[in-house]
Amino acid sequence: MNTLEKSAAPQTGDGMNGNNAAALPTPKRASLDDLDLHVGKKARLYRLMYEHGPGNGTMMLLPIDQGLEHGPIDFLVNPPALDPEFQLKLALEGGFSGIVFHIGLATKYMDKYAGKVPLVLKINGKTNVPSDAQAFSALDATVEDAVRLGADAVGYTLYVGSPSQDRDFLQFNHVRQEAERYGMPVIVWAYPRGEAFKSKGGTDSLYAIDYAARVALELGADVVKLNVPEHDQADPDQPKPYNQMNLGYAGSVSKVVNSAGRALVLFSGGSKISDEDLLTKARMAMENGATGLIFGRNLWQRPMDEALGIANKIADIIKSI
Amino acid sequence: MNTLEKSAAPQTGDGMNGNNAAALPTPKRASLDDLDLHVGKKARLYRLMYEHGPGNGTMMLLPIDQGLEHGPIDFLVNPPALDPEFQLKLALEGGFSGIVFHIGLATKYMDKYAGKVPLVLKINGKTNVPSDAQAFSALDATVEDAVRLGADAVGYTLYVGSPSQDRDFLQFNHVRQEAERYGMPVIVWAYPRGEAFKSKGGTDSLYAIDYAARVALELGADVVKLNVPEHDQADPDQPKPYNQMNLGYAGSVSKVVNSAGRALVLFSGGSKISDEDLLTKARMAMENGATGLIFGRNLWQRPMDEALGIANKIADIIKSI
Amino acid sequence: MNTLEKSAAPQTGDGMNGNNAAALPTPKRASLDDLDLHVGKKARLYRLMYEHGPGNGTMMLLPIDQGLEHGPIDFLVNPPALDPEFQLKLALEGGFSGIVFHIGLATKYMDKYAGKVPLVLKINGKTNVPSDAQAFSALDATVEDAVRLGADAVGYTLYVGSPSQDRDFLQFNHVRQEAERYGMPVIVWAYPRGEAFKSKGGTDSLYAIDYAARVALELGADVVKLNVPEHDQADPDQPKPYNQMNLGYAGSVSKVVNSAGRALVLFSGGSKISDEDLLTKARMAMENGATGLIFGRNLWQRPMDEALGIANKIADIIKSI
Amino acid sequence: MNTLEKSAAPQTGDGMNGNNAAALPTPKRASLDDLDLHVGKKARLYRLMYEHGPGNGTMMLLPIDQGLEHGPIDFLVNPPALDPEFQLKLALEGGFSGIVFHIGLATKYMDKYAGKVPLVLKINGKTNVPSDAQAFSALDATVEDAVRLGADAVGYTLYVGSPSQDRDFLQFNHVRQEAERYGMPVIVWAYPRGEAFKSKGGTDSLYAIDYAARVALELGADVVKLNVPEHDQADPDQPKPYNQMNLGYAGSVSKVVNSAGRALVLFSGGSKISDEDLLTKARMAMENGATGLIFGRNLWQRPMDEALGIANKIADIIKSI
Amino acid sequence: MNTLEKSAAPQTGDGMNGNNAAALPTPKRASLDDLDLHVGKKARLYRLMYEHGPGNGTMMLLPIDQGLEHGPIDFLVNPPALDPEFQLKLALEGGFSGIVFHIGLATKYMDKYAGKVPLVLKINGKTNVPSDAQAFSALDATVEDAVRLGADAVGYTLYVGSPSQDRDFLQFNHVRQEAERYGMPVIVWAYPRGEAFKSKGGTDSLYAIDYAARVALELGADVVKLNVPEHDQADPDQPKPYNQMNLGYAGSVSKVVNSAGRALVLFSGGSKISDEDLLTKARMAMENGATGLIFGRNLWQRPMDEALGIANKIADIIKSI
Repeated sequence: MNTLEKSAAPQTGDGMNGNNAAALPTPKRASLDDLDLHVGKKARLYRLMYEHGPGNGTMMLLPIDQGLEHGPIDFLVNPPALDPEFQLKLALEGGFSGIVFHIGLATKYMDKYAGKVPLVLKINGKTNVPSDAQAFSALDATVEDAVRLGADAVGYTLYVGSPSQDRDFLQFNHVRQEAERYGMPVIVWAYPRGEAFKSKGGTDSLYAIDYAARVALELGADVVKLNVPEHDQADPDQPKPYNQMNLGYAGSVSKVVNSAGRALVLFSGGSKISDEDLLTKARMAMENGATGLIFGRNLWQRPMDEALGIANKIADIIKSI
Repeated sequence: MNTLEKSAAPQTGDGMNGNNAAALPTPKRASLDDLDLHVGKKARLYRLMYEHGPGNGTMMLLPIDQGLEHGPIDFLVNPPALDPEFQLKLALEGGFSGIVFHIGLATKYMDKYAGKVPLVLKINGKTNVPSDAQAFSALDATVEDAVRLGADAVGYTLYVGSPSQDRDFLQFNHVRQEAERYGMPVIVWAYPRGEAFKSKGGTDSLYAIDYAARVALELGADVVKLNVPEHDQADPDQPKPYNQMNLGYAGSVSKVVNSAGRALVLFSGGSKISDEDLLTKARMAMENGATGLIFGRNLWQRPMDEALGIANKIADIIKSI
Repeated sequence: MNTLEKSAAPQTGDGMNGNNAAALPTPKRASLDDLDLHVGKKARLYRLMYEHGPGNGTMMLLPIDQGLEHGPIDFLVNPPALDPEFQLKLALEGGFSGIVFHIGLATKYMDKYAGKVPLVLKINGKTNVPSDAQAFSALDATVEDAVRLGADAVGYTLYVGSPSQDRDFLQFNHVRQEAERYGMPVIVWAYPRGEAFKSKGGTDSLYAIDYAARVALELGADVVKLNVPEHDQADPDQPKPYNQMNLGYAGSVSKVVNSAGRALVLFSGGSKISDEDLLTKARMAMENGATGLIFGRNLWQRPMDEALGIANKIADIIKSI
Repeated sequence: MNTLEKSAAPQTGDGMNGNNAAALPTPKRASLDDLDLHVGKKARLYRLMYEHGPGNGTMMLLPIDQGLEHGPIDFLVNPPALDPEFQLKLALEGGFSGIVFHIGLATKYMDKYAGKVPLVLKINGKTNVPSDAQAFSALDATVEDAVRLGADAVGYTLYVGSPSQDRDFLQFNHVRQEAERYGMPVIVWAYPRGEAFKSKGGTDSLYAIDYAARVALELGADVVKLNVPEHDQADPDQPKPYNQMNLGYAGSVSKVVNSAGRALVLFSGGSKISDEDLLTKARMAMENGATGLIFGRNLWQRPMDEALGIANKIADIIKSI
Repeated sequence: MNTLEKSAAPQTGDGMNGNNAAALPTPKRASLDDLDLHVGKKARLYRLMYEHGPGNGTMMLLPIDQGLEHGPIDFLVNPPALDPEFQLKLALEGGFSGIVFHIGLATKYMDKYAGKVPLVLKINGKTNVPSDAQAFSALDATVEDAVRLGADAVGYTLYVGSPSQDRDFLQFNHVRQEAERYGMPVIVWAYPRGEAFKSKGGTDSLYAIDYAARVALELGADVVKLNVPEHDQADPDQPKPYNQMNLGYAGSVSKVVNSAGRALVLFSGGSKISDEDLLTKARMAMENGATGLIFGRNLWQRPMDEALGIANKIADIIKSI
């Protein structure tokens, strides 16, 4: 059953009353051949999904953009991780599909890993210092930089719901066109953001993340990075009928994967959690249609041996589903 | 009687006193040959108006841009509609003139329908999350994208009356030029918007929609998508003499079609209404000079069989007038 | 006596005390040969000033940009005027030098009048819906559009005194350069605007309009469209010595024509006034150095026969002076 | 002694205590050969400094940009001056080095003076109508316009200290590059501006003008137009040690000329003052290192004969030093 | 031990508890050969690091951008320093690796020092007059200017944490690309700035400067100029665990050098301090991994002889480590 079939299956629910409203079959992980991708995008995704990492159409990415987003503070718990060599070594030996760098790290650290560790060039970013009220992540690199560096994808943060959405759409539109021209896959970090979500269940609600998934699809993302929505119970502040939907872990993941449609979904790890929770997240994601995982702090905020150990466990889960 | 003749006919009223002020003959649907269109625009509109859909110079479009404008929430009442395959199948089997997609859906879902279902590429959009006070719909695609994808028209949302009108005019000016260069028809979603309308009868008033129709014409729209104005009684807050005009359903539709001049008019369906109301709207629109209809949620917010059923009824109305 | 000589004549006043301060001879209408225009601009103005309309170096333009600036509300008093055919017919049969259209009307209605009625393409505009506090008229077309459409001039609204003057200057600078490149005459609608004028006698004061005339000249207008200043008595709020200047009708017109220097002056009609006032305005303007008139609502807000009648009277005045 | 030597001479003061702090020798007027100018800039400045006007490496410019900056109000005291012919005749017969025009006047009035009166094209400006809080002078012409018109320099107003300084720097950067490309000298009107100066002695303080002089040099001005700083006594609001510096007329002029370094300095006349004060200003400027003078209203706000008379006296002073 | 090895060494601490959190070995000064630089950047840095100044892979730069950032006020304590000749002579005779100029000084003063004193062109700047709340340093020159002037690097001020960070990132992105194209090294003045730091220990805190160092690396700086962080005791307002880190002078310097990774670090001198403190700073910087020093006011705010004397002492320290 391919992505096309997955959500066109008949519904079982009866409309607007809570859980049934989302009553679609659990999505299956998409095959690259099911997607009508241009040859350049397909070739590059093939490297990430079949030639490196767990393979078989999956992705396991190691992101290291937190030095810009949060500062070196994130490395204090594991000082060696301050040096990007740490993450490169982890990516290589841990069998990741690729590593995510901003332009500075990509330019200064990739040389000896060129070809061995695929590069995803993150091309926009910001610090977390000034107010987030008009959140906007500005370009710090270009798709052309990614081409020059031999990257296999670019990463772009889209703040869905921010008052700056107009600038964001315009900036992304330009990126998308360049990516189209060069056959470069685009991975969208689709983050709900902005005060407007406060009265609607917050930025981690199913409503918010479900919307973000669809926006990424609509705007032309090839891959979308999502957080797992809150799923313990329905938040009553969410718009109807989300405020009555109590889908649980699997159901929530399944819901947003379906909303992302033919945009492949990666789930993020977020701040550091227990190993058990992390592996549960990995399994839940992969069992409910995700293409892969993009876990950062949960990997490199620990010594290399431990990091390699947990990476292997995650890879095993990915391969098993 | 062609569009040229329709509104140059002698008036019967005596000036500024209410209903008579709009006393023009009921407009007739324009013929493509009456419009002095460049050959490229004419060829593409011909496909939409004669080769696909109900034909005979009409248009019946299926819009599916709500995933961006409202989020996946709109699909919860009919979960299969989350998958754009649903709308594509409906467009193909329901005999629509074309389907309206944003770039992401157009790129990822049109392949197997290429040539079978004409594409209208919607090239700007926004989410409904942040404040609407400075409403502006930013470009998420280009006319060149539309050309590359073999689209037969582009869609553009213009927020008439928004404080951001200057940016909107500049953005549209660029789109219009590109469309001129490539012979691509431009369909303008002309939406009254902004606080300034509040004290003038609101954005659904005859005054507001009448103004929006004319703005679209003045700025160079080839086709304009309008809402049916409120028409039960004259809103006293509207500027004179609109506040005394009580034109009824047919008269209101006729009024705004006349104001759109040689810009062809499509009426939208808006949020879901009863079938009776929907068919009345279809008939009223077509009987009063509209070129066609662009009904979305009223079509795909129901199971496929029902959707095909109502589509056939609408097509029958279109063909009968 | 040419424009060069007109204002270099010796003054008769003695300085800063009121009326004498403006003591320059009544200006004479400029001859096209007195202006050092590039050949392209000269050729196009020649068509407007000698080959069409009243001729002999004059201009009588019919503007129809109110559908954008005010909405279709302006046509309710004379419904047939909603159709641009009305104005085109009036322009042709009434012997106008040209018609003023925005891009939409120019593209869709000029075809059968091409060559018969010269086109002035108005290339910026706005609606009157949102707040006017930062008044700015955004481009909705380009000089290149005007060239492509065979226009003989472009029109540009400059809001002199608006807080947005910096954007306006930059936008106009671009237009002026394009116009220079293509030999396209530029007619500037020079409108005083903005709160700052409130405490200085208002936007219709002699001070305000006199300033606007000079700004248009300084920025490179070939022709400037002005309102007739208030002239019944000096407004005491105006800056010195304007607050003491009581020049009367002829003197006020003469003053602003002199301030416009070698930018040819057209006077506008404004909202509808009595025929007597209109003809007085025409005569006053032409007797005091204006090159022509640009009367819109006063012409087409009446039935065709009446409109043609008054047009002939105006043309007669123009020809007689 | 050239400009290089002038300020590298040993200091005689002992540091931060008032007058001694500025203890540099009185600067000598720079020679064009001392400046390492590109050949194009040198050739054009040569025309202004040696071939026209008082010569011998000096400049006497006649500015006529007040029609834009203040409006025609400035001409009311001498109505013939409304016609740019007045200033052109004055520039030619009064032996000026050049005339300063905005693009409109340059395009429409220079033809018969081409080659006889060198042109300085002022390429940015504004009106004084709206609030000055974010003062920014927008481009109304380009360096390329100046080249096309055979100008020998461009003039640019830089508002040092305005909250809009970022836009100003970016705009000037573009101008400077164009000027470099075409070998066009750049004269910067360096005006302290903005509320921030209010608590620091004001925009006419030595502190403010001294800073403005240096900013012009740092950003790449070839010539800088300055006002003479207030110099009767030290303003206690100025930052230390300016608040203790009491340099007198000559010392203040000398100070800012030194701060301008290899940017040649012109002093402005400002609003009309007595002839005695004007000639004192001319002498003080020239004796303390200025390259020339740019007096406008003090020249053309009087009848032609008087204007020629005072121009001759100024020229004599310039030639004598 | 090269930069690669320096921070990948095993940690000795146990996590998030204060000083141990930063427990990395003291970094060693990087060798140019350890960095994977493009040949153009390497060639230019080689001139600065080996052919001029103290050599052996170090840099001693003389900055003279204060005339723009602070105004001529900084020169009042030593008036001859107002003339850039002073600094050029000091740079040449004091054995500096290069001098830092804005475009105006570079264009007008470098000629006779071309080839003798390497140029670092500072390409953005601002005055300190208007409010700093939205601090943004606008471009006043381009990388192409630097190439044309034979510069060996460009300097760029990045205000890390300013609410204008989005504009800053976009502007820097453009600079970085141009620098990449021309093989021009980029030195980033990484300054924490903005109100948001107030509640986090301020802009001189270890937290702030550590973050700034990493941001420069992430965005692609080749060299980063930093202030020495406050290091007498941990500021309790800093985010955890910075608020518990008490690393002392050497430890703080070491920390931020490590955070800068393969971006070479220069430490600034700041406002004038005692000679003893200055030499301590020099030694502390060089002993803890810095590549060099960029001391301005501490050098040229004294007579030439003294300046040369202290420069020699600094050079000796650099050479000794």
